[in-house]
Amino acid sequence: MHYFDHMATTALRPEALEAMLPYLREEFGNPQSIYPLGSRARQAVERAREQVAAFLGARPEEIIFTSSGAEANNLALRGLAQAAQKKGQHVIVSRMEHHSVLNSARVLERMGFAVTFLSPDRHGLISPQAVEAAMTPETVLVSIIHASPEVGTIEPIAEIAQVVKARGALMHTDCVASAGQLRLDVQALGVDALSISAHIFYGPKGAGALYLKRGTRIVPLIYGGIQESGRRAGTENVPAIVGMGVAAELAQAELAQRAQRLRALRDRLVQGLRERIEHLHYTGHPQHRLPGHASFCVEFIEGEAMLLMLAQKGIYAATGSACSSKALKASPVLLSMGIAAELAQGSVVFSLGDDNTEEDVEVLLREFPQVVARLREISPYAQGWGKREDEGPCIPRS
Amino acid sequence: MHYFDHMATTALRPEALEAMLPYLREEFGNPQSIYPLGSRARQAVERAREQVAAFLGARPEEIIFTSSGAEANNLALRGLAQAAQKKGQHVIVSRMEHHSVLNSARVLERMGFAVTFLSPDRHGLISPQAVEAAMTPETVLVSIIHASPEVGTIEPIAEIAQVVKARGALMHTDCVASAGQLRLDVQALGVDALSISAHIFYGPKGAGALYLKRGTRIVPLIYGGIQESGRRAGTENVPAIVGMGVAAELAQAELAQRAQRLRALRDRLVQGLRERIEHLHYTGHPQHRLPGHASFCVEFIEGEAMLLMLAQKGIYAATGSACSSKALKASPVLLSMGIAAELAQGSVVFSLGDDNTEEDVEVLLREFPQVVARLREISPYAQGWGKREDEGPCIPRS
Repeated sequence: MHYFDHMATTALRPEALEAMLPYLREEFGNPQSIYPLGSRARQAVERAREQVAAFLGARPEEIIFTSSGAEANNLALRGLAQAAQKKGQHVIVSRMEHHSVLNSARVLERMGFAVTFLSPDRHGLISPQAVEAAMTPETVLVSIIHASPEVGTIEPIAEIAQVVKARGALMHTDCVASAGQLRLDVQALGVDALSISAHIFYGPKGAGALYLKRGTRIVPLIYGGIQESGRRAGTENVPAIVGMGVAAELAQAELAQRAQRLRALRDRLVQGLRERIEHLHYTGHPQHRLPGHASFCVEFIEGEAMLLMLAQKGIYAATGSACSSKALKASPVLLSMGIAAELAQGSVVFSLGDDNTEEDVEVLLREFPQVVARLREISPYAQGWGKREDEGPCIPRS
Repeated sequence: MHYFDHMATTALRPEALEAMLPYLREEFGNPQSIYPLGSRARQAVERAREQVAAFLGARPEEIIFTSSGAEANNLALRGLAQAAQKKGQHVIVSRMEHHSVLNSARVLERMGFAVTFLSPDRHGLISPQAVEAAMTPETVLVSIIHASPEVGTIEPIAEIAQVVKARGALMHTDCVASAGQLRLDVQALGVDALSISAHIFYGPKGAGALYLKRGTRIVPLIYGGIQESGRRAGTENVPAIVGMGVAAELAQAELAQRAQRLRALRDRLVQGLRERIEHLHYTGHPQHRLPGHASFCVEFIEGEAMLLMLAQKGIYAATGSACSSKALKASPVLLSMGIAAELAQGSVVFSLGDDNTEEDVEVLLREFPQVVARLREISPYAQGWGKREDEGPCIPRS
């Protein structure tokens, strides 16, 4: 198996599993119970909270554990906007956002909020100036993704946050894709809230977190008991939280080395594919991108066909967006970057991770050009080859 | 350790952990991915969906996986009420409900719904007649807990559902406490929605489910991707879901035998404590109660003091409600049953489970009377002993 889909999920680190196992066996207590079995579970949760806080440069009490990055994003968008709605009812998000942010913003619209959806430039960048121009006295919340899982582009969050904070609004950033590849420091980023998901940085599924700056009011998403200081009810998923803590600690320790290694592999992959495949367009920002992220649009071919043929060769990758590929629709993110719908259909994302070797990349460089050649032979799109100069793709040639 | 707190959480079954381990190791795929690693994860989730559906007498497509019972309750209350709000804006819940239902109902109030909170009788029972009397043409949703984790009382859900359905409203029941001890059959219960939580029936933490009758409209709680047919976003917690499926299958197979065994242990416990402790009041319904559930109010003593002394002897139990005991407030459930606040402070719950033996019960019968005697010696309440005939406790003497 040659796994190039680390934006979809990653393998759990054995160290994290090892730490989880006692809590899947004899240490099964409920952290809210007052006897020792419960206290030990609570201590394990609080230890993980410290680890996650350290990973983000935050204080432990600023970490709210959730069940996923999606839940953290929902909590941030709706919880922060609702808590601030007496101040104003305007929210700004970008068209680069994950569905969990976009759809939360649409829920806010239905609740009476005005929402501005900012378009990126052709590299997927959202400019601080565009955010500033969109802000009104009614703006209470701005949410911009840190790095795109679809095109890898890293947004200038610190600059945007400066603009947002200067105007008195709250700033949230979705760091699900960047956690484990980029240094996350809530002070340096200057944000009020930040979402992560453990299973993207070699932690377990079922664990996410929202950093929420001390003193920031939020309306809960899940009501019930007093867990997470009353901000997120439900019995704590102790094993997953423990695994997330260990994964966060490992990610923090290995970040620099990992980024360097992934960047080298990624650059080899990109350079190699460009040499071997014609009409291949590198999407996203050529420099400001996740170190392990390579994304392309391949002319005249559909992404899903590429994925299926690659999978037959044991190479696992993604198109821009699993949801939209199933609906045979082009990715809204790619379209928002000005990429033509037809070209956007040929989107493919190779996201690298710790398990990838140089050999994986060589296999990809050998197999993928063959897949593309084969598909171009049989693709109905090939019929139009060379006949569409007038409607040529609008692409970010980097 | 003598663990009598199975309403707080239970130990994960080794068979469930065994089934989970591959998905915590090599089978780490994202169920939404189209290559084999993803397909296998999806198949595992769908297999678990069949197991959970069978456990409830439902169809697989009627199961929505959540991260907890609390999330399932939040989704049911707010999601069903919101989806039906054009029909009417009245909701009925009981005062026997878990905080996740009660607080969701309070959120609905803030959203403009009228909410009726029904009081139980002295045994904790909600009568179908009381539900019927509370219904108005505006009533869109009724949510009544199947069995109380605090006092064990089993509500007449089938009868209540009949009343509710005859008036055209939706019926939800919280089965978090009853799952694994009572047969749950959505047809026999006649409900539209039903919540369960895996970690109460020897499954993992981090997995809950909402049964939602086919064709019932619901507004999601967590928005994002297309998971759970668009009704609950977030990458599926594959290991926990797999573990929940196995736990459901085991619970179904062992239900009758487990109930019989727990009932015998419980009856011995109740009889033994009644013989040994004066001024001990059995709370909840004497017959219609969970087989493994024994709950008491002990006069002149505070519940937390009992728990701490029991814990020193390796006996782990609960007071009526962890939340309220921390706030030194009496349990709202006990108060709603007409138990005096002072007596309600002396609440203690012994919830039995598969790991309990006759020896555990004998240890409890030996130690608990000593704890009570010791606490009565030192308790400030003892000062008042015999002086409060005029304000004697209002108790369900069964």
